[in-house]
Amino acid sequence: MSRVAVKRRILRVKDTARTPRIDSLAAEEPLEIRLDGTPLTVTMRTPGDDFDLAAGFLVSEGAVGAADDIATIRYCAGATVDDGNTYNVLDVRLAPGVAAPAPRNFYTTSSCGVCGKASLEAVRTVARWSAADDPVELAQPTVATLPDRLRAAQRVFDRTGGLHAAGLFTSDGEPLCVREDVGRHNAVDKLLGWALRNDRLPLRGTVLMVSGRASFELVQKAVMGGIPVLAAVSAPSSLAVELAAEEGLTLIGFLRGDSMNVYTGERRLSIASGAGYGSAGAHSPG
Amino acid sequence: MSRVAVKRRILRVKDTARTPRIDSLAAEEPLEIRLDGTPLTVTMRTPGDDFDLAAGFLVSEGAVGAADDIATIRYCAGATVDDGNTYNVLDVRLAPGVAAPAPRNFYTTSSCGVCGKASLEAVRTVARWSAADDPVELAQPTVATLPDRLRAAQRVFDRTGGLHAAGLFTSDGEPLCVREDVGRHNAVDKLLGWALRNDRLPLRGTVLMVSGRASFELVQKAVMGGIPVLAAVSAPSSLAVELAAEEGLTLIGFLRGDSMNVYTGERRLSIASGAGYGSAGAHSPG
Repeated sequence: MSRVAVKRRILRVKDTARTPRIDSLAAEEPLEIRLDGTPLTVTMRTPGDDFDLAAGFLVSEGAVGAADDIATIRYCAGATVDDGNTYNVLDVRLAPGVAAPAPRNFYTTSSCGVCGKASLEAVRTVARWSAADDPVELAQPTVATLPDRLRAAQRVFDRTGGLHAAGLFTSDGEPLCVREDVGRHNAVDKLLGWALRNDRLPLRGTVLMVSGRASFELVQKAVMGGIPVLAAVSAPSSLAVELAAEEGLTLIGFLRGDSMNVYTGERRLSIASGAGYGSAGAHSPG
Repeated sequence: MSRVAVKRRILRVKDTARTPRIDSLAAEEPLEIRLDGTPLTVTMRTPGDDFDLAAGFLVSEGAVGAADDIATIRYCAGATVDDGNTYNVLDVRLAPGVAAPAPRNFYTTSSCGVCGKASLEAVRTVARWSAADDPVELAQPTVATLPDRLRAAQRVFDRTGGLHAAGLFTSDGEPLCVREDVGRHNAVDKLLGWALRNDRLPLRGTVLMVSGRASFELVQKAVMGGIPVLAAVSAPSSLAVELAAEEGLTLIGFLRGDSMNVYTGERRLSIASGAGYGSAGAHSPG
């Protein structure tokens, strides 16, 4: 049985009609990530690309920035009392000299207390690179194709309707890597892990496209991956826009059909392929 | 300025038209929850109903079950270097004799390793009550009205398009409490906190309606609140269905117009108001 989708008998109700049928559900299982044998975090995720998820989590935390920073990743046998392997526990060994990540909630370490500003500062402190000077330019018609391209690459969603997707694209709209997960942050971590393990960090010149909303956490992950453009089908949050503005990212929301909202960094968007609209960036508050 | 929504100048792009306009964004700010002065967790949330969020978080963790279990909740002044108050740090004091919650990731404490089954067992161990024997019955036409009722009660979504909603309803479809947040789990925690602080736990005879998908975490929160029915606009995950089946909850997904998918506990659903369809529950695999 696939671990990505699970079939289950359900009842379909429409008006007074009740029809039992077999439905596909997006699978969700906990994943425990250990670091040198010590539990680091547990996340609820859709199984698949787990090594990438663990690696990407460490990228998001600022702990690693190149494939060599990770010595090994392996599933832990012996995670159960009968020495079985649930494939839900991973142990990551960092390379010699690579420090373990800061505590998960690094927001709390700021001397100015917990606030949006401290969250922004924390990202700036931890980030290994900046995409602010990334000169990539995107043709608006290309950007408009990304939701369809992302959807076309979603394998499980069509069956379950229950997965978020995240895709990395070139500036020409070609997909580099697409991942699905019940948690959007997991899908993005899987992309970052894929990039790390293929030594493609920082991801200059790329676009991160996500299926739903753009939260602070997603912008943070884009920053940690060195991605200059984040596009979302739905709304961004306020702190997401603030972080994108501060870090020089281009943030696009409500990307549907041929329309979109550009929240920050409009200098990277050209009206037609090859046209150099607004490269001075003077039109954007961000 | 409202802390729930934030206005920002954006660029609206449609075809070759570019129109600057003022947009409302769902606000997102970190909230640190301290327990007797010790940091417990940080969550990214939309400001508002923070005391309920903190209380509901503790309900979800199994730490408290009645209003009296919490002695005080207060914003921490002095959270910043200049003794200011960001209204993003809360300190909760538990009543004498109330134990602090188990570690956040209690999945890891199971002797059988991290797996879906361990997650189910962990909920069973921590839950204070069971909704399995709740005899509430819902008329299908009433259930069909819940998405519209939830949407009607959403104050911020219409402005920002960026918030998840969760609502508690009576079996007659009357709203008891509706909350919005960038994080759906936060919205549900806010409902649980409201219920706790009004001494309404367990929430027998009620329906929890959420705007998006139904994850394991949301079903877990319904269980911790003693809620017998969870309805979602979109898809549930596999582990969400498993937990609902095990705990005797009715789980409804893809609730749109007059159609819905019933995943577990169909015995509680009657075709018309007052009709006693399937009260024996023998039709459901769950």
